[in-house]
Amino acid sequence: MATDIATRELRNPIDLVEYLFRRVYEVGVRTVHGVPGDYNLTALDYLPKCGLNWAGNCNELNAGYATDGYARVNGIGALVTTFGVGELSAINAIAGAYSEYVPIIHIVGQPNTRSQKDGKLLHHTLGNGDFNVFTRMNAEISCCVARLDDPHEAPTLIDNAIRECFIRSRPVLITLPTDVVMRKVEGERLKKPIDLTQPQNDAEKEDYVVEVVMKYLQQAKNPVILVDACAIRHRVLDEVHDFVQRSGLPTFVAPMGKGAVNETHRNYGGVYAGSGSNAGVREQVESSDLILSIGAIKSDFNTAGFTYRIGQLNAIDFHSNLVRVRYSEYPNIHMKGVLRKMIQRLGDLKLSAPEVPPLSNRLPDEEKHSTDKTITHKWFWPMIGQWLKENDIVITETGTANFGIWETRFPPGVTAISQVLWGSIGYSVGACQGAAAAAKEQNNRRTILFVGDGSFQLTVQELSTMIMNKLNPIIFVICNEGYTIERYIHGWNASYNDIQQWDFKGIPSVFGAGSQYKGYQVKSRAELTDLFADDTFCSAPYLQLVEVYMPKEDAPVAMRTTAEASAAQNRK
Amino acid sequence: MATDIATRELRNPIDLVEYLFRRVYEVGVRTVHGVPGDYNLTALDYLPKCGLNWAGNCNELNAGYATDGYARVNGIGALVTTFGVGELSAINAIAGAYSEYVPIIHIVGQPNTRSQKDGKLLHHTLGNGDFNVFTRMNAEISCCVARLDDPHEAPTLIDNAIRECFIRSRPVLITLPTDVVMRKVEGERLKKPIDLTQPQNDAEKEDYVVEVVMKYLQQAKNPVILVDACAIRHRVLDEVHDFVQRSGLPTFVAPMGKGAVNETHRNYGGVYAGSGSNAGVREQVESSDLILSIGAIKSDFNTAGFTYRIGQLNAIDFHSNLVRVRYSEYPNIHMKGVLRKMIQRLGDLKLSAPEVPPLSNRLPDEEKHSTDKTITHKWFWPMIGQWLKENDIVITETGTANFGIWETRFPPGVTAISQVLWGSIGYSVGACQGAAAAAKEQNNRRTILFVGDGSFQLTVQELSTMIMNKLNPIIFVICNEGYTIERYIHGWNASYNDIQQWDFKGIPSVFGAGSQYKGYQVKSRAELTDLFADDTFCSAPYLQLVEVYMPKEDAPVAMRTTAEASAAQNRK
Repeated sequence: MATDIATRELRNPIDLVEYLFRRVYEVGVRTVHGVPGDYNLTALDYLPKCGLNWAGNCNELNAGYATDGYARVNGIGALVTTFGVGELSAINAIAGAYSEYVPIIHIVGQPNTRSQKDGKLLHHTLGNGDFNVFTRMNAEISCCVARLDDPHEAPTLIDNAIRECFIRSRPVLITLPTDVVMRKVEGERLKKPIDLTQPQNDAEKEDYVVEVVMKYLQQAKNPVILVDACAIRHRVLDEVHDFVQRSGLPTFVAPMGKGAVNETHRNYGGVYAGSGSNAGVREQVESSDLILSIGAIKSDFNTAGFTYRIGQLNAIDFHSNLVRVRYSEYPNIHMKGVLRKMIQRLGDLKLSAPEVPPLSNRLPDEEKHSTDKTITHKWFWPMIGQWLKENDIVITETGTANFGIWETRFPPGVTAISQVLWGSIGYSVGACQGAAAAAKEQNNRRTILFVGDGSFQLTVQELSTMIMNKLNPIIFVICNEGYTIERYIHGWNASYNDIQQWDFKGIPSVFGAGSQYKGYQVKSRAELTDLFADDTFCSAPYLQLVEVYMPKEDAPVAMRTTAEASAAQNRK
Repeated sequence: MATDIATRELRNPIDLVEYLFRRVYEVGVRTVHGVPGDYNLTALDYLPKCGLNWAGNCNELNAGYATDGYARVNGIGALVTTFGVGELSAINAIAGAYSEYVPIIHIVGQPNTRSQKDGKLLHHTLGNGDFNVFTRMNAEISCCVARLDDPHEAPTLIDNAIRECFIRSRPVLITLPTDVVMRKVEGERLKKPIDLTQPQNDAEKEDYVVEVVMKYLQQAKNPVILVDACAIRHRVLDEVHDFVQRSGLPTFVAPMGKGAVNETHRNYGGVYAGSGSNAGVREQVESSDLILSIGAIKSDFNTAGFTYRIGQLNAIDFHSNLVRVRYSEYPNIHMKGVLRKMIQRLGDLKLSAPEVPPLSNRLPDEEKHSTDKTITHKWFWPMIGQWLKENDIVITETGTANFGIWETRFPPGVTAISQVLWGSIGYSVGACQGAAAAAKEQNNRRTILFVGDGSFQLTVQELSTMIMNKLNPIIFVICNEGYTIERYIHGWNASYNDIQQWDFKGIPSVFGAGSQYKGYQVKSRAELTDLFADDTFCSAPYLQLVEVYMPKEDAPVAMRTTAEASAAQNRK
């Protein structure tokens, strides 16, 4: 009865789940990932009328990875799972998104509020009447939790959660009990979009910080710019681009910052990762008297095992919640406003802009003239750089691919996706499905995945989702007989690092790809260069999978360094 | 230095991880499941010398399901994962084991203790220095957590955790930092096995309870026995068997209690599940004036949507921590001792033992004489009952299979595996891998899986693990075009309940099965009966997969009832 009165008071009553999905659409989502389950089925009925496609993933972990990949290309993603079993299956993917600042709206269909209150012995529960346990677990890896138990406060909670998701660039959890799905809420609210603008820095404080930074920049003899993951994830790439362009300073990226800057720009010098850096880069960065570090995440795998040699006295760190100038910290200040003002004042400076080492996917001399037909990492990754096109999306799996890509110079506009910090193997196959869905929505950009034969096995069924959704990524499966990165850390010949040998290129066919698929097997350098010369292959007209055979014991140099550091760390 | 002194004081110093794995072996584990990761590699080196095989699963969720299946056949199982990514991927499987009382020793390889103390920015972390977050999440679904940070207390913690795992029949978490793996502990302790005996009930209290129960039993006119999941999970099957045998009382099982009693016994009457009961069973159970209910879990899917009609005034409930006589509760008493004493005193009673309805996998008359060639659930499940052999292991997936099996009367010694309460789809394929591994260790029992085409897609890669480990289950994939159970709940024609069509029987070949595999496609009743007449097929000499085509809209009656109840519940 209370509801009826309330409904009559609404000017434009719409169903709660429609409100939710319209907001999801409003912030840019077009494809929702997930798996159906009996506690979310009614909600799924509303997707089409809200303009949303349903990816229909094969399992929830893969769906979570896919949402992550989608969000990295699209800016934000949405995932629907079911209570208990579904949300827990996805939790590793959500933790990865939390770790790496990827905005995911995770909607969990729950049993009705009365059953929850009564502690009913329902399926998908622990059998102990505790309906909050999974939300507690999820809360550990979500920046905001909205429980839509009460339709009166639901719209406010939804708007707030989506805003938090975007601004903090991290997953949020929205729980949706079955009995609340169709309760009426005020549709008029939708006329005013959710405010996604970044809160402004305190102007006086911002000016002060800019002043300090500019003073050091003016005094510096050989300053450089180092761009990392958080520049991408906290959306300051326009500022980074303008700053690089206007300053003319030598610019480098950390591995997780790949794709953040135009790598064909004359200022661009390559990847800095301590002892895993591109040739010549380490010397230039570590001899600089001022490193402008934008959005750094100095994790072990992002620094080739903590091998940075940069003194804090020579560093200014720009973050989403902090600027640090040498040892002086300025908390609660976002780099975006600071960078914007710095760009405006650059004209006043006379910066020295030394040459950067040339980098153009050229093969090392010994590789260029080699008569060896074997595909090695040293040969492979610069070749990939020559083959890639503008605006490609490049996904690399944890393992040899994630390190090999450091040696690839991208064309302009490339989006690079990897999970260097969280490093969950199998991630890239799911992420590829989501990225390819977003790519299709963005004028059919090419999506290219590099994954090892071991990692591929964890999440292989997402090939099926790609087929079902008619997505056309090009997938390179690096066939090197198992977990090579682990062999470098421990257990060189251990059987636990071996895998079952699969007919990888045969898999899409058994998943029903039909004629909308082509598979290849590449065992020599000539075979790969021939493939790259094939226009049809390069135009990615359908799903393609390429088995690339590489020696079991071969690995990119940076991976060897990092693995050795990890092994030493584990022994400590 | 402290360590060296301590080591010198040990009479028989052995590496901590060897101590752990020797204990795991001692309690009966022979195959350890899991996925290698850099924080657990050194530990894995110790498996062979401790007599343990490594299953080498394709991913951690599947490994968790496999450990669950292994434990249900073997009595206890062990799982090894790596920090963060691995343990979170497995968490849904562990939650299922917690929910359904399955003992799993979950060992997580962690970064070294110093890195944890320093909050280092390592891969597989959230990047916030919090190394406890995943353990907190796991603690929600583990009955005991042992953190092996200090080698001095580690053996005590290990022994205690394994004991808790067994006694409480639930998962325990053991965290193992890399630097502790090879620290020395006292090997002499191993000479004394872990005490796995059930704590004795207070004798006076037990006598009192037995007295009360026997009084009601003596007065009852038509008592019956109803056996459910916890009788299996809390290991009172010997007592149940003796009690059934000696009392001569009509005996029924709940769906989750399938396999708990000898279904060829003359007392056995079939499955009781309220309105989802076998023919004639509901009447007999609900008209009984005393239901001896052993190990009940009255969840929605175990009671066909809460359709029990049993008054508490007619019930005595036996549990692992409680006996309830009508409304009188006797907490802190284990059913095992009570049942044992009841059996001893049965001779004093004169029990009426009415006839039970005959049940023998006979087809309903209309099916027997039908000219329809279509394989329907009504026809299929009794046929399966005729085909099964003594000591088979029968696994059924959530969906039509889990309900259909209610209509199958088992030969003696059958172990039934299903996840009726937790109900995570995809569970059964992983569980099948683990169960088949245990079956191989038990004189090559046959392992038979029934799984729907939708569920199969979630965990398909465990076929590869079966192939790698040379396991020979017979897998029936019920091909009915998607999530039929969900269609019955909501979305009859909704595309979210559709799936990509796979060539299921082609999959083992692309996973490298070679000649050690045979696939079949069965579309008519005759084709299935022919297959069942094939001795080679029945002898399960290699992996076999049978596609069984059934109509999309067909389902076991009990599933229809339960799904309707679920849908109503969701709408409330």
